[in-house]
Amino acid sequence: MSQHSGYTVSIHYDHRLFRHDIAGSTAHARMLAKTGIISQEDAAKIVDGLEKIGQEIEGGDFPWDPALEDLHMNIESRLHHLIGPAAGRLHTGRSRNDQIALDMRLYTKDVAEQTIQGLRRVQRSLASLAQRYSQVLMPGYTHLQRAQPVLFAHHMLAYFQMFQRDITRFDDCVKRADTLPLGSGALAGVPYPTDRDFLAKELGFSQISANSMDAVSDRDFVVDYLSAASLTMMHFSRLAEELVLWSSREFGFIRLEDAFTTGSSIMPQKRNPDFAELARGRTGRVYGHLMAMLTVLKGLPLTYNRDLQEDKEALFDTVDTLLPTLEVFQGMLAGLELDRERVESLAGESYMLATDLADYLVNKGVPFREAHGIVKDLCGFCESNGKGLDGLLLADYHRFSQEFGQDVFQITARSSAAARDNPGGTAPQQVSQELDKVRRILKEAGYGI
Amino acid sequence: MSQHSGYTVSIHYDHRLFRHDIAGSTAHARMLAKTGIISQEDAAKIVDGLEKIGQEIEGGDFPWDPALEDLHMNIESRLHHLIGPAAGRLHTGRSRNDQIALDMRLYTKDVAEQTIQGLRRVQRSLASLAQRYSQVLMPGYTHLQRAQPVLFAHHMLAYFQMFQRDITRFDDCVKRADTLPLGSGALAGVPYPTDRDFLAKELGFSQISANSMDAVSDRDFVVDYLSAASLTMMHFSRLAEELVLWSSREFGFIRLEDAFTTGSSIMPQKRNPDFAELARGRTGRVYGHLMAMLTVLKGLPLTYNRDLQEDKEALFDTVDTLLPTLEVFQGMLAGLELDRERVESLAGESYMLATDLADYLVNKGVPFREAHGIVKDLCGFCESNGKGLDGLLLADYHRFSQEFGQDVFQITARSSAAARDNPGGTAPQQVSQELDKVRRILKEAGYGI
Amino acid sequence: MSQHSGYTVSIHYDHRLFRHDIAGSTAHARMLAKTGIISQEDAAKIVDGLEKIGQEIEGGDFPWDPALEDLHMNIESRLHHLIGPAAGRLHTGRSRNDQIALDMRLYTKDVAEQTIQGLRRVQRSLASLAQRYSQVLMPGYTHLQRAQPVLFAHHMLAYFQMFQRDITRFDDCVKRADTLPLGSGALAGVPYPTDRDFLAKELGFSQISANSMDAVSDRDFVVDYLSAASLTMMHFSRLAEELVLWSSREFGFIRLEDAFTTGSSIMPQKRNPDFAELARGRTGRVYGHLMAMLTVLKGLPLTYNRDLQEDKEALFDTVDTLLPTLEVFQGMLAGLELDRERVESLAGESYMLATDLADYLVNKGVPFREAHGIVKDLCGFCESNGKGLDGLLLADYHRFSQEFGQDVFQITARSSAAARDNPGGTAPQQVSQELDKVRRILKEAGYGI
Amino acid sequence: MSQHSGYTVSIHYDHRLFRHDIAGSTAHARMLAKTGIISQEDAAKIVDGLEKIGQEIEGGDFPWDPALEDLHMNIESRLHHLIGPAAGRLHTGRSRNDQIALDMRLYTKDVAEQTIQGLRRVQRSLASLAQRYSQVLMPGYTHLQRAQPVLFAHHMLAYFQMFQRDITRFDDCVKRADTLPLGSGALAGVPYPTDRDFLAKELGFSQISANSMDAVSDRDFVVDYLSAASLTMMHFSRLAEELVLWSSREFGFIRLEDAFTTGSSIMPQKRNPDFAELARGRTGRVYGHLMAMLTVLKGLPLTYNRDLQEDKEALFDTVDTLLPTLEVFQGMLAGLELDRERVESLAGESYMLATDLADYLVNKGVPFREAHGIVKDLCGFCESNGKGLDGLLLADYHRFSQEFGQDVFQITARSSAAARDNPGGTAPQQVSQELDKVRRILKEAGYGI
Repeated sequence: MSQHSGYTVSIHYDHRLFRHDIAGSTAHARMLAKTGIISQEDAAKIVDGLEKIGQEIEGGDFPWDPALEDLHMNIESRLHHLIGPAAGRLHTGRSRNDQIALDMRLYTKDVAEQTIQGLRRVQRSLASLAQRYSQVLMPGYTHLQRAQPVLFAHHMLAYFQMFQRDITRFDDCVKRADTLPLGSGALAGVPYPTDRDFLAKELGFSQISANSMDAVSDRDFVVDYLSAASLTMMHFSRLAEELVLWSSREFGFIRLEDAFTTGSSIMPQKRNPDFAELARGRTGRVYGHLMAMLTVLKGLPLTYNRDLQEDKEALFDTVDTLLPTLEVFQGMLAGLELDRERVESLAGESYMLATDLADYLVNKGVPFREAHGIVKDLCGFCESNGKGLDGLLLADYHRFSQEFGQDVFQITARSSAAARDNPGGTAPQQVSQELDKVRRILKEAGYGI
Repeated sequence: MSQHSGYTVSIHYDHRLFRHDIAGSTAHARMLAKTGIISQEDAAKIVDGLEKIGQEIEGGDFPWDPALEDLHMNIESRLHHLIGPAAGRLHTGRSRNDQIALDMRLYTKDVAEQTIQGLRRVQRSLASLAQRYSQVLMPGYTHLQRAQPVLFAHHMLAYFQMFQRDITRFDDCVKRADTLPLGSGALAGVPYPTDRDFLAKELGFSQISANSMDAVSDRDFVVDYLSAASLTMMHFSRLAEELVLWSSREFGFIRLEDAFTTGSSIMPQKRNPDFAELARGRTGRVYGHLMAMLTVLKGLPLTYNRDLQEDKEALFDTVDTLLPTLEVFQGMLAGLELDRERVESLAGESYMLATDLADYLVNKGVPFREAHGIVKDLCGFCESNGKGLDGLLLADYHRFSQEFGQDVFQITARSSAAARDNPGGTAPQQVSQELDKVRRILKEAGYGI
Repeated sequence: MSQHSGYTVSIHYDHRLFRHDIAGSTAHARMLAKTGIISQEDAAKIVDGLEKIGQEIEGGDFPWDPALEDLHMNIESRLHHLIGPAAGRLHTGRSRNDQIALDMRLYTKDVAEQTIQGLRRVQRSLASLAQRYSQVLMPGYTHLQRAQPVLFAHHMLAYFQMFQRDITRFDDCVKRADTLPLGSGALAGVPYPTDRDFLAKELGFSQISANSMDAVSDRDFVVDYLSAASLTMMHFSRLAEELVLWSSREFGFIRLEDAFTTGSSIMPQKRNPDFAELARGRTGRVYGHLMAMLTVLKGLPLTYNRDLQEDKEALFDTVDTLLPTLEVFQGMLAGLELDRERVESLAGESYMLATDLADYLVNKGVPFREAHGIVKDLCGFCESNGKGLDGLLLADYHRFSQEFGQDVFQITARSSAAARDNPGGTAPQQVSQELDKVRRILKEAGYGI
Repeated sequence: MSQHSGYTVSIHYDHRLFRHDIAGSTAHARMLAKTGIISQEDAAKIVDGLEKIGQEIEGGDFPWDPALEDLHMNIESRLHHLIGPAAGRLHTGRSRNDQIALDMRLYTKDVAEQTIQGLRRVQRSLASLAQRYSQVLMPGYTHLQRAQPVLFAHHMLAYFQMFQRDITRFDDCVKRADTLPLGSGALAGVPYPTDRDFLAKELGFSQISANSMDAVSDRDFVVDYLSAASLTMMHFSRLAEELVLWSSREFGFIRLEDAFTTGSSIMPQKRNPDFAELARGRTGRVYGHLMAMLTVLKGLPLTYNRDLQEDKEALFDTVDTLLPTLEVFQGMLAGLELDRERVESLAGESYMLATDLADYLVNKGVPFREAHGIVKDLCGFCESNGKGLDGLLLADYHRFSQEFGQDVFQITARSSAAARDNPGGTAPQQVSQELDKVRRILKEAGYGI
């Protein structure tokens, strides 16, 4: 190796594709034999040799050699060592360019599936949490200002929806990666009577690529994964932000388990939500990889350019960030304890019921904007008299509108929530139905609770 | 307006949502009447008023008032002016938060559809171009080095595939935006017996949102559009790069129409590919908007926060960048002239046929790696004797292998391309079949050529 | 104009460079006369014409023509109209490429200076605020957990330091933009005996560019501004986050003035911190422009390419985002009211003084780690007995260490802060000295308080 | 360690800070002794222990323990093992928060200095290259169209200027990192009479931080490095693009050494410019890290939050990308061979001298725009008669203007370049002077050629 050769070496990270590379080569050897391009004997030797190599790698016995730069050369060289000249026939009708495209697609499909499974487990934790505290009211926020009472379960199920969308994105990601590039050669196709449909079937692809030049240049599926991962991490950053807020003394809504907090060396009570903070921070990392990959691809002429080698670490590190984040949230949410009393006590606090008062008037026939005006005046009266809405007498109400009756006192946080009794609303029966749906979704996906 | 109020004003850009806002309000008014929440008379007045407002805006007669900050307030105020107190009832059972979410979803669905149509037109230009020069060979490149002969049509159809994937992404984008948020209120749902399914039907949504808190906080669909647009612009940046390269004197492959080049004030022959360069540059702009929106959403607690107002300009400017780029490429590709002689003359130049020689030997039974070794030596021989492969005699060939026969001289750029006769390969009959498929796809989409 | 010409038009945004363009042309005309390249008469006509054009534009009387695409062509065409053939001589010894580079540099220098002034005003507001509440204690946070008491003034001056660093970055930005590109021609220099030093002096540049090819390709100074702006917006996003937190009922630390909050239409008490939220959101926008510009420049060969036109809107929108943000914070901070009682009451709450207890023991000779162990046990004792440190008796202390004396009760939030009496620490006298320094810095910069 | 603890572990990357951490702890121990906070004996033990630990790590004998999560805990634990209870005194008057801020600043200063040295070496290669081919003309490009002849040396020195600016950015980076944070404690300062000026002197800082809360929250200096690195990589991406273009058969301008190209397994002549491509691709990686870090910091409240742990890998990987890229370019440029004949032959080709013709007329007194018109007609004449400007007779010239004389034939590529004889222009004597300056700059920096 020359002085600078480290610059092009990739074996320290591309080795992780070994299972996919071996699977691809095995299928290729079988296809070459099936079509008579190589002999059955040679194919059998190759397949055996590859199997042995797989075992060596799994077992930690493989003689990795950085001088051989990448995974392909390491395996190829080892295969030669193990089975001799027959190894030379494996590369018939294929090139590095379609081989690496194949490996990356197989890998991407795998990790996208794993990501979906991880998201399902997080969803299950959310659903359990929603169920455990299904009747607990809490303040709902806009602008980080208390706005209207909502069920804690409703709040949790909002995140369920986000992850549900994320799952559809990773599903799409699988679909888009699900095209066999093998058979594209270096760029123009291969001059052998290969059977690409056989290859696709062997390797579990639902279709073959339609254009060889596109097939060896295309890394859209990597960007698709990174985009989906960016949105998912964004959702976790929002949830993490809330967990951090709720863990503060000022909010005091929740208690995270010890396993998900870091204490002070001195204050055992200190419960820093480090895991949530790290997840929030790692959002940046995934966004960064997305931007990196988009930048790499910008302005590249067809077909293969070495710039494309940069696809790997961006993807691998994203996977290594996202999958553990899913595990952390699954566990962190499962063990989260809600301070029911605290959140319930704030749920109907003071002006949060003002809009309910306006709706009360609307229901008595007052036009919407007029009702708003009345309640606005009422709130102003409270403010200047230093009292909350909950401190008013009927006489006070009547100073602003004769439409107010004794039933105005039945407006509470609970009645407010209960009134939002439309699909998607926070009324207990709506949330309960939603929870049923959610359970069904999870059960169908094999994650029943 | 206070001194700083300009900071929150959005009317200078959100006005473009007026059609969607009016459609949403009209449907809402109808629903309120249908469910008896407001009277048929009021609803009729509202619907008429909104229709008139729509006409005023279309006609340029609407009295926009920046002091009213945003589109909603402008329309609401005008409606009051036109129909009086009934206007006050329109806001029953809805809030700014679900209203703007609705407008953005309607808008996103619309522009995603337009984007698909624009992409189809670009695909049609590509297909026409492929057809026009269907038999022309050119050098195919890896690392910007000539590698193997390919059909120009094959090269063009590689881009067809990229845009085909882009279309599926915008299709998904439509699907993800296709959820009605109206009825979510400020965050918790609404305390009225609204009929959300009716609204969905009126407004062309296939489903209603399942969680009100998510519905008012969610801007994933905007990110989805920006992600899809980033990939699409990336594809155009690759094509633009190639057009710039091919327009250079050094390549000299193509001539762009005058309408898509900018001349020098002095040299009428100067044909700067400014449109391609601008498209390439504008890739950055769209990436930037994606990054911007991901940053906006990072770490936001539920539910609505004013940060979300930043969704609009990022999306609007992306649309204003992408749609015209589609138009430009449709036209630019349609009028592109290929210098057939030039590209054909380079298609089989010198060492580009080396891999074909190796494949020739493999077909004669030489193992792949050995065949490669022989051709490597042969190329070395050429290099040191200052000749190309095309200058060798049979005797020269025999110095390296007796397997070479007279038929070695039948290896040409055209035979090389023809040999790559597998699905996805560059063999003329493969490309021709692919072109048929492509025509079918376009025809089915209503863009027959 | 052809059907697609809108794609290349820039007049709708580059018109804002008119003052810089006119200044540049005026200086160029003077130089051409001084060096005898054109006659004094021609130069005089040109300068007069340009002055008139400047007045027309300022007065709103200039006949802008989009068909002329950009600012340069609009001014050039108008100049011809006003002064006839002499106008044709202005373009001697200069090209579009060095002309636009000049305009952008003049503009960047200007806005960087304005940015510094805006930052100074924000710093002044921070210093005033620190002074107004100079003795008020509040909880200092790590991980959004209360950690140690700090002075509110100390907290405000942390932001002063951030903006101080930002100012040095914009200073550097001015320095890097401070190189005259004029005289570089299209790319290779100009074949006239121009006097570039004269031009530099006229236009206020401290040096001339050393390489014409670099000078017309270089947009580093734009990236420099965008990088500095990104960091500045990041700082504001942190401050904005704190203002949002502190405005929440849960924290309840501050009250923002009406001008910087948006109320509910119904609850006059509702004080949504919309300005802070928007500033936080607009951080994304500026990051996006930075990413956009970096992407534009990636992989561009020398020299001028039309991609560079994309430098303008990225820069302009960043300026239009940052300068108003500075104004908003200047005003918002100036009018911020701190709830002294609330923050003081939380400043020494419970375990926040634990580290002070450990330091107390260290000062009595106990090794640091041992002291920590003792206090850890003490805190554990409190936790399991449901009391705070403030509820302990001396006897309780003695169960853990005999080193505790009566003076342990002198440990309070105030004593804790006072003890951090080293440069940079939160002790009142340190903060007071720091405030003096800060005032001196502001005074020297012409922003005395 | 719990099941999820891997999520917070950093020892696999933060170990690389060990030299800086040990230097910081050593200085801290000395300061504690000097101020009497701990005894001289304890300090001596600590310093010895730390020295031994440093040797262990350098020698590969250190017992790293992932269960101890990070570098600090590993060293602290080992110190206890080596020297017993005295180790417990090292943490007096300091916290993790100011300790890690210190380590990062020491590291950043170091790598910024190394980056500058690497850039100097690249500049030296550029200067050598410029000198080697100092008189060679080549086509200068705009829009990738040949525009005007330039000296190859002039082109190379354009990059010298870019890297010169980069160096000033890394210089600024050093300056901004050059502030001692130690003494800031967890966030509020420390309750010991520490001597921060002594620490600063020991550790080579020119100043101490002014505000403890800022000091532990600030990672601006990391962003500064990443911004500077992004611009530098952008410059390399431009140079890489040109090397890729120039290595193509179509341009055929240069030959890169074998060590910087990757051949085909079959074609020894194949010289793929993989190193240049990888450098171009890795630009994305560095942009990504910049975006990642900006995202991490967005919206973080004061002071330390665990999100900040994400600063390390972003910085480390940027350093690991940039420094090797500098080495690669130093070597790649040094060995680059220019095809003089090829580039010279294209330097004056056809219409490239059109602007010189116009300037010729201007020098004869024709107004600039009129001269342009004449040459435009002349070029049109050539185009329609299928000849180049070099094929015209004087009679042909006279059809367009009588101002043309015999001396028009003295306009050549060389005369064109020579005419651009102003500072920054491509005239040989200007370039020669510039080369002298450049040599002086390098010599003063210790990199004489």
